[in-house]
Amino acid sequence: MDCITELAGKGAAARQAARRLATLSTAVKDKALLAMADALEQEQAEIMAANATDVERAAANGMAKPLIDRLLLNEARIASMAAGLRQIAMLPDPVGEAAAGWIRPNGLAITKVHVPLGVIGIIYEARPNVTVDAAGLCLKAGNAVILRGGSEAIASNTAVTAVIARAAAAAGIPAAAIQLVETTDRQAVTAMLKLNQYLDVIIPRGGAGLIKTVVENSTVPVIETGTGVCHTFVDASADLVMAGDIAFNAKVSRPGVCNAMETLLVHKRIAAAFLPALLERYHQAGVELRGCPEAMKYHQSVRPASQEDWAAEFLDLILAIRVVDDFDTALAHIAAYSTRHSEAIVTSEYNNARRFQQEVDAAAVYVNASTRFTDGFEFGFGAEIGISTQKLHARGPMGLRELTSIKYLVNGSGQIR
Amino acid sequence: MDCITELAGKGAAARQAARRLATLSTAVKDKALLAMADALEQEQAEIMAANATDVERAAANGMAKPLIDRLLLNEARIASMAAGLRQIAMLPDPVGEAAAGWIRPNGLAITKVHVPLGVIGIIYEARPNVTVDAAGLCLKAGNAVILRGGSEAIASNTAVTAVIARAAAAAGIPAAAIQLVETTDRQAVTAMLKLNQYLDVIIPRGGAGLIKTVVENSTVPVIETGTGVCHTFVDASADLVMAGDIAFNAKVSRPGVCNAMETLLVHKRIAAAFLPALLERYHQAGVELRGCPEAMKYHQSVRPASQEDWAAEFLDLILAIRVVDDFDTALAHIAAYSTRHSEAIVTSEYNNARRFQQEVDAAAVYVNASTRFTDGFEFGFGAEIGISTQKLHARGPMGLRELTSIKYLVNGSGQIR
Repeated sequence: MDCITELAGKGAAARQAARRLATLSTAVKDKALLAMADALEQEQAEIMAANATDVERAAANGMAKPLIDRLLLNEARIASMAAGLRQIAMLPDPVGEAAAGWIRPNGLAITKVHVPLGVIGIIYEARPNVTVDAAGLCLKAGNAVILRGGSEAIASNTAVTAVIARAAAAAGIPAAAIQLVETTDRQAVTAMLKLNQYLDVIIPRGGAGLIKTVVENSTVPVIETGTGVCHTFVDASADLVMAGDIAFNAKVSRPGVCNAMETLLVHKRIAAAFLPALLERYHQAGVELRGCPEAMKYHQSVRPASQEDWAAEFLDLILAIRVVDDFDTALAHIAAYSTRHSEAIVTSEYNNARRFQQEVDAAAVYVNASTRFTDGFEFGFGAEIGISTQKLHARGPMGLRELTSIKYLVNGSGQIR
Repeated sequence: MDCITELAGKGAAARQAARRLATLSTAVKDKALLAMADALEQEQAEIMAANATDVERAAANGMAKPLIDRLLLNEARIASMAAGLRQIAMLPDPVGEAAAGWIRPNGLAITKVHVPLGVIGIIYEARPNVTVDAAGLCLKAGNAVILRGGSEAIASNTAVTAVIARAAAAAGIPAAAIQLVETTDRQAVTAMLKLNQYLDVIIPRGGAGLIKTVVENSTVPVIETGTGVCHTFVDASADLVMAGDIAFNAKVSRPGVCNAMETLLVHKRIAAAFLPALLERYHQAGVELRGCPEAMKYHQSVRPASQEDWAAEFLDLILAIRVVDDFDTALAHIAAYSTRHSEAIVTSEYNNARRFQQEVDAAAVYVNASTRFTDGFEFGFGAEIGISTQKLHARGPMGLRELTSIKYLVNGSGQIR
């Protein structure tokens, strides 16, 4: 079967399934999520055996150690995937929630309610846990999902999908609610990006290259996730102890994620008092420092930053540092280089806090806190399918409600126009 | 200047303008809207002169009369455009409106506020009033707009845009807030659809062909508007007088718009009691009737409906009629042919009303009212930029709030993770 035929078949089946899924009660969906969690644990031997073939092939192909580690499934990771599903079962169901309601002068009663999006395509890279996570979130919000994972994890993803889809079906969920694209042919991605007839949205989860490919080629609506060139601006009025802790945390606590800081901006009035100790702290923590000429004065390890460094998402223990003349220069720098993900100011001036939050265009704009909080769990959503860096539909951390659309219910008594 | 250079220049200018627009007060924006309205009336001679060249060229090219009428601007139409702007000035400003706010256990205060989308591209056909309407709505919601109208109206659109942009600038709005693509080269549309760097969203307004071109070729996020294959299902329990009025209104009151009914579904149990009088009423009103074999029994003017008729958006005094065996057949017909715009049931059974609203997947689902109410004004939004038939971002009538995105303001006291 060629991949266009496979995709069209899966798309049509998903569309049918979505029609039923939209009307299932929360109780049925939650029971299915718990059954999926149990099945993952009960059938972990099957899953680990499949995963072993992926890991062996990856090792034989010379895949780098950290990537092999990301691919690996063991008992603890399977238990964590199951725990994730149980947590999703505990969350409130967004479907049916009324967003607004009003009565028009002619008596028409209008209610705006949340409904499932329909069929969601997820294109992701080699972490098999995304398979379970995405399937669980899409199911809870009443959506059918078509999953396309990386070829490196195909055996793992196939085994995991078989286990959870079987458990879900036994619990009353339509069989086509959770489907995996089985071919590893790259043409399948191309076909998926043009599957407007069956897909309501595609969410890419992975590196910048994957996201770029999806955004540039998809005619299905896309929710762009991920890239974070996040800044922290330490204003002249900042509490320098607080600023140091925030700036250190934002870079070092988990440098490989999208909400980590990539560039530190420091007001020149406090640079001499602030930077030497902080830069030494970074240096001790193994952070590679790249700065403007002014920043280089404050620590011997600072190398000159290139033009590219200001725009780079390092995702690593590398930091760009710029000393700025004033507040407006900081805002202009952020406007020029931000990917509109998360931006922070550390300040004690009310008016600077206010202006920063008003003028900086990003999904999350922080005053006196680390950018690392941009996350569905930290925001209290109880789940996260990704962090949107676009402005349409969803922006910032996406929880279950962001996996829904709306519908207007209009109730009349014979109104005509 | 080639069109790619023109678009990139306008895009960059719009992005700059958007940064300032996002921080302008409602008072400044409203003052500008009123000034734009005044300018349209004061400079109507200039606008009508430009319009005359469009109309003459259209007539010379043999454009059909109704299309020439749509193109024509006279004093009354210019006054109506001005009135539209004054009405937008009266509406509440969605920017800054808080959608939600909460405090996390660690003390972080999170507020979700509405912010402008940024830069909006509007691609539309030959009605010059769209120029004013779209510019006014985008401005009120704090967005920069790049307008691309049809080549038939280029002189009118150029004159209108010059007048309103000049008035807006004099009232303190950035000059690049309202821009028109000046070339009529079709390549400009292609370039616009790939202008991801500068455009946050493209909204096409026009016929099915235009919308298809935009959806299939744009890499900028699109809000799909318009196509409405709307059904009215007259259930066996319907009040037949009410059902007749609703069905007549939905087809005849304004057949050329997207919320008009295209197919009438009638439960077979009441077909004999219901259809003869209604079909005669349609016939008297000049409606061409195309039906299933069963429907053909009830009026001599009913011609056989083809497979294509069930999927057709006639936008004309043409109606497809199908007699269905039961409620489920009606739901299946709607699921198969609906464009998910507006669907109605006329019924007196609670459970059928409930199931219809739950199971039918459309932007607006009516019980005992005409589908013709799907409209931003009729819904009480006070304005309408279009009716979305997609599920992402906005669905159904789009008012000012649908021209915004959101932003999370996160206020802390030194929180780190």
